[in-house]
Amino acid sequence: MITVALPKGALLKDSIRLLQAVGLDFSAFLDSTNRQLQIQDPHSSAKALLVRAQDVPVYVEYGQAQLGIVGYDVLREKQPQVAHLADLEFGQCRLSVAVKQSSPYRSALELPPHGRVASKFVRCAREYFHNLDLPVEIVPLYGSVELGPITGMSEAIVDLVSTGRTLQENGLVEIEELFTSSARLIAHPLSYRLNTGNLSSLVAKMRDIAALAKVGS
Amino acid sequence: MITVALPKGALLKDSIRLLQAVGLDFSAFLDSTNRQLQIQDPHSSAKALLVRAQDVPVYVEYGQAQLGIVGYDVLREKQPQVAHLADLEFGQCRLSVAVKQSSPYRSALELPPHGRVASKFVRCAREYFHNLDLPVEIVPLYGSVELGPITGMSEAIVDLVSTGRTLQENGLVEIEELFTSSARLIAHPLSYRLNTGNLSSLVAKMRDIAALAKVGS
Repeated sequence: MITVALPKGALLKDSIRLLQAVGLDFSAFLDSTNRQLQIQDPHSSAKALLVRAQDVPVYVEYGQAQLGIVGYDVLREKQPQVAHLADLEFGQCRLSVAVKQSSPYRSALELPPHGRVASKFVRCAREYFHNLDLPVEIVPLYGSVELGPITGMSEAIVDLVSTGRTLQENGLVEIEELFTSSARLIAHPLSYRLNTGNLSSLVAKMRDIAALAKVGS
Repeated sequence: MITVALPKGALLKDSIRLLQAVGLDFSAFLDSTNRQLQIQDPHSSAKALLVRAQDVPVYVEYGQAQLGIVGYDVLREKQPQVAHLADLEFGQCRLSVAVKQSSPYRSALELPPHGRVASKFVRCAREYFHNLDLPVEIVPLYGSVELGPITGMSEAIVDLVSTGRTLQENGLVEIEELFTSSARLIAHPLSYRLNTGNLSSLVAKMRDIAALAKVGS
């Protein structure tokens, strides 16, 4: 029996659509009255877990889920021991450096040395500024990172940007891009190697659909 | 001018009620259509920030907010450099060890050595089992910790319990209590010492109300 870990939030709808296309129905998770975190496909023995995006790789790493769908940003930040199987070609966004529109800085290298950068992506942010040889203090936040520059706590933020609406509403402007992200299919390495529950045929189908999506986009 | 950092979620309503009682009106945050993260009291120059509970001590530590309200659980887990001013006597809950009802374990010391414990409170959980001299692996999760034992990923969890409903709904049972928690008033140490914006009279009023709440309970 296969278990798939699915992320709450922005990637859920497209993840469920993709799984439906390969014959697994977990649409019950989209029902707003649903409180279950673990459901079974009505037509097969496959199960799905609904968890926070950051927890998807944890369930896959420990083998409680053989497959998982999660943003590349989470994989870059947490670096879990999982097999990266495919770019699913949805959930596109980017991890960017942003500053106040009124700020004088227009590139990362212009930021003041020993300035502060607020971020939920502490590891990615630290690595990025380290590679630039620019010493900054990373201020770890859990949410609403845009408040960092607004309150004057930090000169800049490193955060995910998709439409750019949140930045704009908060008077911030993107000045650098660290990397682009999209939804990824990941697997528990041993389960994938042993082809538990005929994982490989499922993965092949999902790869085909993702490839079609890429051509279509 | 004083800025107060307020936590989203369970403590928000009581926090705003307390501030209203000392003459600061931030009830606009309770309006479900509100999207602002920073508002000003209409009758004074005090401001409030609406942030994730874990971020409250960050804004206070960096002095962007002189005061903050946050659960003791967050202070124990993150150990920020802030002044602890008062127990506000609301938001009572406890950090507990829980296992499956069907599990044979009925105390923490019965848990298998090198077993797994899932938690959002990684530092508190690690410290607790370290003090028991019981080597366990802490599995860090961001949400829905109850899925740990349900999926078989962990033998136990360390999580916040208030009514116990979530545990019960998921077939889990509390076996130990690490500590009890409630809302706390914290301050930026330097601002408090310098009595910025006459902080001390505000703090004294809030302490009086909390003391009354304690007598009443």
